[in-house]
Amino acid sequence: MENQPNLEELKPKIKLGMKFWLEFENKSILGSGWAKLLKNIEKNKEGSLSHAAKECNYSYKYAWNILKRIEKRTGKAIVITGKGGRGGGGWVKLTDWGLYLLEIYQKYLNEITKIEKKLGETMKIS
Amino acid sequence: MENQPNLEELKPKIKLGMKFWLEFENKSILGSGWAKLLKNIEKNKEGSLSHAAKECNYSYKYAWNILKRIEKRTGKAIVITGKGGRGGGGWVKLTDWGLYLLEIYQKYLNEITKIEKKLGETMKIS
Repeated sequence: MENQPNLEELKPKIKLGMKFWLEFENKSILGSGWAKLLKNIEKNKEGSLSHAAKECNYSYKYAWNILKRIEKRTGKAIVITGKGGRGGGGWVKLTDWGLYLLEIYQKYLNEITKIEKKLGETMKIS
Repeated sequence: MENQPNLEELKPKIKLGMKFWLEFENKSILGSGWAKLLKNIEKNKEGSLSHAAKECNYSYKYAWNILKRIEKRTGKAIVITGKGGRGGGGWVKLTDWGLYLLEIYQKYLNEITKIEKKLGETMKIS
């Protein structure tokens, strides 16, 4: 009675959906957007938060609030700031704690990316 | 100025959070609850939907609606039903399409479980 499914036709319509993040004491502290901001801060040689924020399409203020929110939730500084620097007007740099969180997130992301390859399915990370 | 984070103390407070599901044509069709229902149907030798639903703490009707929703979203039957059987009153069984979806989900879950082991972090799947 049952028709055999035409898997060749159906398979491309199936996707693996996923959302992932880091938690600290059960509070969400780092999802894909916030991790991208930290990564942009890390790679920005001038320590410009404006530039790092811009790459995420965030305003300076929005980015700053994200940093403060992560710090509040973990109870520890994730950035240090200072005056002056090449661009003038101040610089920002990840602390060891900020780097540590980013590192865990990146390892996590790496492992997740491997699943897509291994299972041969399209993954949609949101 | 910056205090070194005491990672031994902080690390146990960090968890990997995750939510994952299957999509068909961009519609969610199988998350952890619905997949558990399909699994319970598959392993129930008598084909009792009541029993399978009960193991998920779902009512018969709630479970039935889930099955119909997946069928509507994929355009294909995921169960076949019949009258009689050991328990009387009818049986339910996964179609090849239902089994196929469950299999993809299980493989996906397996790979995700490996991440927890590999990274040595606690994972919280919701």
